[in-house]
Amino acid sequence: MIRAKIIGAGGYGGVGVTELLLRHPNVKILGLYDIADIGKPFSALYPHLAGFCDLPILDAAHEADSEPADVAFLATPDGAGQQLAPGLVARGTRVVDYSGDFRFNTPADYQEYATRIGRNPVHGAPELLAKSVYGLAELHRAAIAEAPVVGNPGCFAVSIILGFAPAVKAGLVALDSLIADSKTGVSGAGKTPRPNFHYPAQYDNMYAYKMTGHQHVIEIEQQLSRLAGQRIALTFTPQVVPVCRGILSCCYGTLVRDVSLDDVRQVYLDFYRGAKFVRVLPKGAAGQNAAVRGSNFCDLWINVDPRTRRMVVISHIDNLMKGQAGSAVQNMNIMFGLDETAGLDRPGIYP
Amino acid sequence: MIRAKIIGAGGYGGVGVTELLLRHPNVKILGLYDIADIGKPFSALYPHLAGFCDLPILDAAHEADSEPADVAFLATPDGAGQQLAPGLVARGTRVVDYSGDFRFNTPADYQEYATRIGRNPVHGAPELLAKSVYGLAELHRAAIAEAPVVGNPGCFAVSIILGFAPAVKAGLVALDSLIADSKTGVSGAGKTPRPNFHYPAQYDNMYAYKMTGHQHVIEIEQQLSRLAGQRIALTFTPQVVPVCRGILSCCYGTLVRDVSLDDVRQVYLDFYRGAKFVRVLPKGAAGQNAAVRGSNFCDLWINVDPRTRRMVVISHIDNLMKGQAGSAVQNMNIMFGLDETAGLDRPGIYP
Amino acid sequence: MIRAKIIGAGGYGGVGVTELLLRHPNVKILGLYDIADIGKPFSALYPHLAGFCDLPILDAAHEADSEPADVAFLATPDGAGQQLAPGLVARGTRVVDYSGDFRFNTPADYQEYATRIGRNPVHGAPELLAKSVYGLAELHRAAIAEAPVVGNPGCFAVSIILGFAPAVKAGLVALDSLIADSKTGVSGAGKTPRPNFHYPAQYDNMYAYKMTGHQHVIEIEQQLSRLAGQRIALTFTPQVVPVCRGILSCCYGTLVRDVSLDDVRQVYLDFYRGAKFVRVLPKGAAGQNAAVRGSNFCDLWINVDPRTRRMVVISHIDNLMKGQAGSAVQNMNIMFGLDETAGLDRPGIYP
Amino acid sequence: MIRAKIIGAGGYGGVGVTELLLRHPNVKILGLYDIADIGKPFSALYPHLAGFCDLPILDAAHEADSEPADVAFLATPDGAGQQLAPGLVARGTRVVDYSGDFRFNTPADYQEYATRIGRNPVHGAPELLAKSVYGLAELHRAAIAEAPVVGNPGCFAVSIILGFAPAVKAGLVALDSLIADSKTGVSGAGKTPRPNFHYPAQYDNMYAYKMTGHQHVIEIEQQLSRLAGQRIALTFTPQVVPVCRGILSCCYGTLVRDVSLDDVRQVYLDFYRGAKFVRVLPKGAAGQNAAVRGSNFCDLWINVDPRTRRMVVISHIDNLMKGQAGSAVQNMNIMFGLDETAGLDRPGIYP
Repeated sequence: MIRAKIIGAGGYGGVGVTELLLRHPNVKILGLYDIADIGKPFSALYPHLAGFCDLPILDAAHEADSEPADVAFLATPDGAGQQLAPGLVARGTRVVDYSGDFRFNTPADYQEYATRIGRNPVHGAPELLAKSVYGLAELHRAAIAEAPVVGNPGCFAVSIILGFAPAVKAGLVALDSLIADSKTGVSGAGKTPRPNFHYPAQYDNMYAYKMTGHQHVIEIEQQLSRLAGQRIALTFTPQVVPVCRGILSCCYGTLVRDVSLDDVRQVYLDFYRGAKFVRVLPKGAAGQNAAVRGSNFCDLWINVDPRTRRMVVISHIDNLMKGQAGSAVQNMNIMFGLDETAGLDRPGIYP
Repeated sequence: MIRAKIIGAGGYGGVGVTELLLRHPNVKILGLYDIADIGKPFSALYPHLAGFCDLPILDAAHEADSEPADVAFLATPDGAGQQLAPGLVARGTRVVDYSGDFRFNTPADYQEYATRIGRNPVHGAPELLAKSVYGLAELHRAAIAEAPVVGNPGCFAVSIILGFAPAVKAGLVALDSLIADSKTGVSGAGKTPRPNFHYPAQYDNMYAYKMTGHQHVIEIEQQLSRLAGQRIALTFTPQVVPVCRGILSCCYGTLVRDVSLDDVRQVYLDFYRGAKFVRVLPKGAAGQNAAVRGSNFCDLWINVDPRTRRMVVISHIDNLMKGQAGSAVQNMNIMFGLDETAGLDRPGIYP
Repeated sequence: MIRAKIIGAGGYGGVGVTELLLRHPNVKILGLYDIADIGKPFSALYPHLAGFCDLPILDAAHEADSEPADVAFLATPDGAGQQLAPGLVARGTRVVDYSGDFRFNTPADYQEYATRIGRNPVHGAPELLAKSVYGLAELHRAAIAEAPVVGNPGCFAVSIILGFAPAVKAGLVALDSLIADSKTGVSGAGKTPRPNFHYPAQYDNMYAYKMTGHQHVIEIEQQLSRLAGQRIALTFTPQVVPVCRGILSCCYGTLVRDVSLDDVRQVYLDFYRGAKFVRVLPKGAAGQNAAVRGSNFCDLWINVDPRTRRMVVISHIDNLMKGQAGSAVQNMNIMFGLDETAGLDRPGIYP
Repeated sequence: MIRAKIIGAGGYGGVGVTELLLRHPNVKILGLYDIADIGKPFSALYPHLAGFCDLPILDAAHEADSEPADVAFLATPDGAGQQLAPGLVARGTRVVDYSGDFRFNTPADYQEYATRIGRNPVHGAPELLAKSVYGLAELHRAAIAEAPVVGNPGCFAVSIILGFAPAVKAGLVALDSLIADSKTGVSGAGKTPRPNFHYPAQYDNMYAYKMTGHQHVIEIEQQLSRLAGQRIALTFTPQVVPVCRGILSCCYGTLVRDVSLDDVRQVYLDFYRGAKFVRVLPKGAAGQNAAVRGSNFCDLWINVDPRTRRMVVISHIDNLMKGQAGSAVQNMNIMFGLDETAGLDRPGIYP
């Protein structure tokens, strides 16, 4: 059994991976750590887990004093991972970090990101940064398998990169034409109450935000640029809608040659052959959030507008699953040579 | 492996039990039957099951021509079960029926129910009716184990009977004082669109309905009357709130003697000792729908108002799980001597 | 024109009365006051009012330095009103206070309330308290007209008192049998974000709370006790459902004699004759939150369960209108001899 | 007083205009007509209007037998307007039609539209079609004032045309670069229940639809083409989110020259100078649905992404107000020489 620790267990990212690991056939949870609610049973925070996970929350400050784990999930905010990961790796623990700390391989790329979010641009663990891998399995499966540290991708990034990657790699779309229009559920903002997300403010409301540069755009551009072999700039419009779980991204690109819907679909089918969690929808079928909610799938609905010669790929994920905890477990499965779907092979519930 | 058929698979009751059986370790689905959408893959109706259940929907009219199952779930409306069950039982199939057809043991009791809902008061299978058992495991576990036909209880009934049963059996409450004030999510009304449940009409709306007698009141009164040893009449106020899954029932009763909260709690703890799906909440904890949504649990929050000497038990269930498909699978487990929690031993998802 | 000030303008109670006064034919807003966001235009907090109310928020600490108003609405928490009201009254301003500060006429009654909510039990303005009137127009219209200070009632209290008052006054129900089961929308908790009301926590969720004594129960019992001529104790179960605006209260009482539904309805029709904002629904009609949302109406749906000889009155209000700002304006209209419906004579919007 | 009839009063478009006309200072409602619910009081369909509009629904088949109105609102589906309008105009009634029947001036343009929606491509009233005017006041105010028949625009069209018009007219954006990504609330689909809009199916769900050509795209392209002086093709992605009222459209266009955000904003401010219902948001302010819900405003949030040299205009409307009934009343005001804001000069309610 793989022994796992979850650090930052108290937030949505923590409870998400805990739920998945509880039913994972190859994993034993060694401990749940946080900096708040220490000593409380986890089910006091998340009563749906009463009888399933009554482990006490342990003090993250003392994690290093206990038995080292095989894997640690750092469901922690930006900055924590670069502090914690070196010690964990030194004790033989492999790390999946949820924040932006390990989504960028080079100090220069990290600096761009850190500057955007107003943090110290000098990375705290540059050696690990160099060895870390961007944790989107559909692009970096082999490297993830070997990585000491995996930078779990941002939720918007997952939906958008998966929506664009095949077309960008195949050179189907003009690289200066890419637009991602993304709608997220509110759980993507985490567990902390804020005025915008107060039920009376958020119900029946929708809005765009961070129009001048959401932090996820950097990792999206970096990943797509690598696929393209040249630098890409993306227009990205994040929006919040009154949904709990889910991201719907519309990925727009102008086709550079006269290709049919069938051609484009074939490029996507080929790219995702063997990818267990990407479903390129059958021709004629339409996607919806309810089809992915609660599961680790990314559903892609490929469209071509022949009048404007534009490709529109609609990408659906559950932001807390494929967009976060599900990808984290998928990455762990790959890191430890397990079946990639272990613990993830289930649909959501409906309705 | 127990071979199961689901008849009426296309509705919420059908998809609910299908989802549960797909991950049940001891069950194989022989066929999904309905009278509509015949030939379509099940995942065309419920796309979240793509890759998990792509079985074609079979014509319910020809079910009898195929290999008999060990168990059939009749997720069918009132009247269908009494027509189908005799043939199924004759072919060696045990039956769990979702409707009111087998919730009443005697023709007289059935007649009262049938009259209330405007149906033919003469039952179509009186011999089976006499052998059938009301499928609330916490009351009738032993009889369910032997029954050829189990009448799966109504969703409101589950929440209310479980809320009152210990107090009524123990004689704690005045039998003429019982009031159940129940709030249900909209999925309890099934899959068929209706004006009330149209999103713009239902969002931000709530209302009581059937004030002059919801059909579930009859089975509630019958079950509680048996526990009391005398006839009980209940005031029941069903209400709809903008929730998808869930029932919250407030169960009121006037205490007949001066008992403390601890005393009442102990009566409930004793009554539900060994009941794996009833959680009497710890003193000081409060219930919520999110704690049971997606699971088969019934959470009971016991309160006593000393000023009015009244007991208020707050009962939470997921109407599609413990209120329907979950109870159905729990009943099947009991009927076939399996662990009662097989296929049901999981929490819901949160948030 | 009546000159009005709103103190505590920034919360839901403040914006509610501001919206109403903006279109009131007889009122001019002198100033909006608060202790936060000072200097910001009101429309920066509430952008739907851009172009309608761009007044700056003024510092409540300096309210006394400006021109006195004819009326002040204190949309402030418990404790503020008793500090502010004496000065306002001394400068010739009549006061409508939203908190519990002036809902109780006697120091003894206030003490019971203050103790319940953990505040200093000694009232800060006992002379004004003695002259204040409980601001439920349907019960105290004449006294409100003369009062220097009106204690605007609690939202639950409005729905429950209006639901019980006629039956209690007429002696129709056993006084020890009263139960109010109330479901409120989330806006009733105000504007401040809290974990329970965070969209992902509140969507699809419902729960009871304060089972051991919501603070509104005291004013309800006091008002009903006066109507009954003897002390009444009420069982009250407040619940939150995923609705923004609205309260649905089920008011239960055992009938003391054999009266018909028509008899009970007649008692209610007589009691509310001339009450412009109470609609006793026609026989056969059912109430719903959507019928009162955005308006000052209280819709009462009268039911009698002959089997249990119990009356069930379903009471619907918008908690921010008849439950708060609407009642406040109605009280002001009465205080200044205006048509009681001035500024309130409009339906809500639908859907 | 202008005498108005509403034909097709029973749907959301009908109740919307009825609500507005009830409080319009210059209008008297002569009659509400429909083909269903004839004889019922309007408030039986819409109980929030009890006491405000209890007029009986009249049989639309006999409308011509009654006193002619000054204006008729045809809240009717495609095809009805072209049958009804000639008779109405002949009797001296001016017409505002909600459908696509009068949104296109020429038989050729209408034919394209009718073919798209699967209707008879030959218009039933070609003379009136030629005299009709597209009812978007911000573009065609003068012509609307004179028109016998106004084709009230589609809800998506209002949000998108207003979002693009200034930039297209000023030649700021490449005409082959236009993309509109629109999210609508469910009320845009009307009052008829459908499986997609059933509460359990729609809550927490979102999806794109009609990717191969929503019917509104034709009128958008036609109007923008006129402003550009050349034929424009638009990529349009309609989406449904769990909101009742509201449209959020993201309008993308590549800037053809190096203009700043200030330059673009100035173009919009100039274009909408005097337009009472378009609010170009102040620099630094962000739009949201809650700011327009219940009102006739269109809020435009202008953004420029300098890295991709792309303009992103976020356009917010209430689909039932500026997107339907509000525009209809605005058009009527213009047709009859009233203040354009008469009956519309109010904010929505919040929260």
